[in-house]
Amino acid sequence: MEKKLKQDSTHDHNETFCNIEGVNEVLMANLNKDDDRPVISLGLGDPSVFQCFRTTALADDAIVDAVRSAKFNGYAPILGIPPARRAIAEFLSRDLNSSQFSADDVYVTVGCTQAIEIITSVLAPPGANILLPRPGYPIYESRAAFSKLEVRHFDLIPEKGWEIDLDAVESLADENTAAIVIINPCNTCGNVFTYQQLKKVAETARKLGIFVIADEVFGHLVYGNTPFVPMGQFGSIVPVVTWRSLSKRWILPGWRLGWIATTDPHGILQKSGIVDDINNYLNISTFPASFIEGAIPQILETLKEDFYSSILNTIKEAADIFYSKIKDIPCIACPQKPEGSMSVMIKLNLSLLEGIRDDMDFSLKLAKEESVIVLPDYDKLIGSSWAVINRFLQKSNLHVVHDNGGVAVGLKNWVCINIAVEPTCLGEGLDRIKAFCHRHAKKQ
Amino acid sequence: MEKKLKQDSTHDHNETFCNIEGVNEVLMANLNKDDDRPVISLGLGDPSVFQCFRTTALADDAIVDAVRSAKFNGYAPILGIPPARRAIAEFLSRDLNSSQFSADDVYVTVGCTQAIEIITSVLAPPGANILLPRPGYPIYESRAAFSKLEVRHFDLIPEKGWEIDLDAVESLADENTAAIVIINPCNTCGNVFTYQQLKKVAETARKLGIFVIADEVFGHLVYGNTPFVPMGQFGSIVPVVTWRSLSKRWILPGWRLGWIATTDPHGILQKSGIVDDINNYLNISTFPASFIEGAIPQILETLKEDFYSSILNTIKEAADIFYSKIKDIPCIACPQKPEGSMSVMIKLNLSLLEGIRDDMDFSLKLAKEESVIVLPDYDKLIGSSWAVINRFLQKSNLHVVHDNGGVAVGLKNWVCINIAVEPTCLGEGLDRIKAFCHRHAKKQ
Ligand SMILES: Cc1ncc(COP(=O)(O)O)c(C=O)c1O
Ligand SMILES: Cc1ncc(COP(=O)(O)O)c(C=O)c1O
Repeated sequence: MEKKLKQDSTHDHNETFCNIEGVNEVLMANLNKDDDRPVISLGLGDPSVFQCFRTTALADDAIVDAVRSAKFNGYAPILGIPPARRAIAEFLSRDLNSSQFSADDVYVTVGCTQAIEIITSVLAPPGANILLPRPGYPIYESRAAFSKLEVRHFDLIPEKGWEIDLDAVESLADENTAAIVIINPCNTCGNVFTYQQLKKVAETARKLGIFVIADEVFGHLVYGNTPFVPMGQFGSIVPVVTWRSLSKRWILPGWRLGWIATTDPHGILQKSGIVDDINNYLNISTFPASFIEGAIPQILETLKEDFYSSILNTIKEAADIFYSKIKDIPCIACPQKPEGSMSVMIKLNLSLLEGIRDDMDFSLKLAKEESVIVLPDYDKLIGSSWAVINRFLQKSNLHVVHDNGGVAVGLKNWVCINIAVEPTCLGEGLDRIKAFCHRHAKKQ
Repeated sequence: MEKKLKQDSTHDHNETFCNIEGVNEVLMANLNKDDDRPVISLGLGDPSVFQCFRTTALADDAIVDAVRSAKFNGYAPILGIPPARRAIAEFLSRDLNSSQFSADDVYVTVGCTQAIEIITSVLAPPGANILLPRPGYPIYESRAAFSKLEVRHFDLIPEKGWEIDLDAVESLADENTAAIVIINPCNTCGNVFTYQQLKKVAETARKLGIFVIADEVFGHLVYGNTPFVPMGQFGSIVPVVTWRSLSKRWILPGWRLGWIATTDPHGILQKSGIVDDINNYLNISTFPASFIEGAIPQILETLKEDFYSSILNTIKEAADIFYSKIKDIPCIACPQKPEGSMSVMIKLNLSLLEGIRDDMDFSLKLAKEESVIVLPDYDKLIGSSWAVINRFLQKSNLHVVHDNGGVAVGLKNWVCINIAVEPTCLGEGLDRIKAFCHRHAKKQ
């Protein structure tokens, strides 16, 4: 019987990693067991483990009430239960000056991860392409590759506070380009796009005849000088498909609850069939737990400004500690103080370090010597997601999709640091990084 | 800007329905508003709305404990949290005589719906095909079409108590066949496959060099003479990939928690790369709420036989009422008393009815005249899922996938009835069907 099932002789078990979690594992495996100090993870972002980021019991109450009501044990409607869609629409409408969301504009999803799956599926080939930021979030690349949707990367420019390279956007787009993705506040760079920048994105997209996908999973998580502007504000210039979730602002990534909201006052997404395609795709997809959807109205209603601001204050405190300490480390540069999201990119100056080959080497040695985990360059992650997906496609004789960019200019030897960590712990982590850099400093 | 977004001029908003929920809507829209009697839905299966199928508060307690513990707010590991995987493995092992599951054989999913998505994605083309039962569960057809995985249907034979047509299976399979799907207990037919039949399936699959996918979403929901035999028992004959969920046995479809378990004592799925492909696909997918995973050990431990048997007794009572009443309706035949799952197929004898064109017409008129909802033939549903998916693919210039079967022999004018309905309500529904049939009976 084993004839067909054994076909895959090219199969390779030696993939090192294929996602952030995978890199994390590799680094964790490199820890020195004899180091008594606690491991400090500034890599994978899961603030929910820290007491200071503990979400309010009010959110738990909403779940408990929903479960105990026994009203939400059945299958939910495919687009989401109406009270949740209405509550989300009202909540989002408070953000916008002019346009209003209606429940019909909202689709409840299993986190933004499912939103990414949906959009990359409905924008599928042949020949279609999507414009993604670099640095970005590797699930986009993986999902696009899986759907054989071509990816074209535009850069965020560190020297300009991670501004979007709009000239590159214009030159990358062609008649097969479907959309551009903007992650704001920006994971992993920690910047927040200004009103003016976002307006330019909208105008550029309009000019190119594409729509904008606004990944606002970190929506409202801003603590610097730049206010958060929802991309949906520019819906009259260009159609916008926005997603958010409970994962970041509410520190509830494990609840797996997100939503897609369309801002499309001219009905362009409707007419072009994209709205129907999203509907159709949801028809063949799984959905969030009904009682979590059922808890949404109560969560959005009972959680008040004090909750949101206490989370923000904690991140701001962490950002202050981060920035004051990082400035003191000679071989590390951070072009801009983080203003939003939960992470930031730092640049290694290898010419000041002895025997550190690159950012991966830096991360591995830091894990071993200081029990501190940081994430090496996202670009490599993206590269490795592509590698795994390509192997997967290759095996099925599907086309192998090539990334059309090399390593991004200016993005070699960057390391990503998650600052949504208990502040004293973050401080200790940075002190260890400093000690590490001192120890490895080149003798002058 | 609207140039590209307006391209889809072929777009058609007149799809009547594309899934069970869609059919249900069409039928609901056909109800007579002036009928004061309560609507009785024997169509969509959501027993959770009835008090008699209300799950035990012990399950809710497990959720409440998990949420209140605040231990499960973070992202869960991609394959599931280890205690949940262990608890599921132990729970499944109790079913099997010989082989044992380990936590490594278990992948936690967002219901069986996600399991279907995963398997149709990893078995993808080109040229690959999968063998599906007819009648079956339309999401398989939709997902396969979406992944361009060719579907080949084998029939379940009503005259033989819905036995699997294994001769057809043998003649359908070729060297591109990857797997055969068996739904047991059988939705929508209400039969339960015997040990002997399942063993033959395993042997046939072994001979064909394919593996078996056992959809056991209704696992253990048997209340007749045929005991439930987990397909995994035949793992030493052929590799088996089984899925189940909390949706049916625990009457918790809204909790969106299921699992894939592999029975593969010879490591064939491992060697052939299928296990790695499932891992890779999970890497780019969303997952269940962490605290629901966190509640699994407690749910599986505290819910005892009395809970499972009280649910079974209620379904059995319903099945008895159903069968005694349906036998009294001359124009309807039911080849076999249901023994498992929550639904059953009945055949309309249109030659005894005046002015009823087909099963859809029957369902529409029944809704209008008697405020009773039943589901017309699944085959049409499957057909219409294909239609929508094909439109979707066509639009993207993807290959259109054709179903290679016509209407299944012997499956014209069958109607599916969901019997997991509060028993007096089910009785009343059947009385109304009887009145309807009398009123429409042909004058002799
Ligand atoms: C930019 C970005 N998009 C999407 C996601 C996925 O979010 P969710 O937890 O809602 O699935 C993340 C998670 O970190 C992210 O950083
Ligand atoms: C045969 C079959 N498989 C899978 C499913 C989906 O189950 P879940 O609720 O676990 O996603 C169903 C739901 O009715 C079903 O009948």
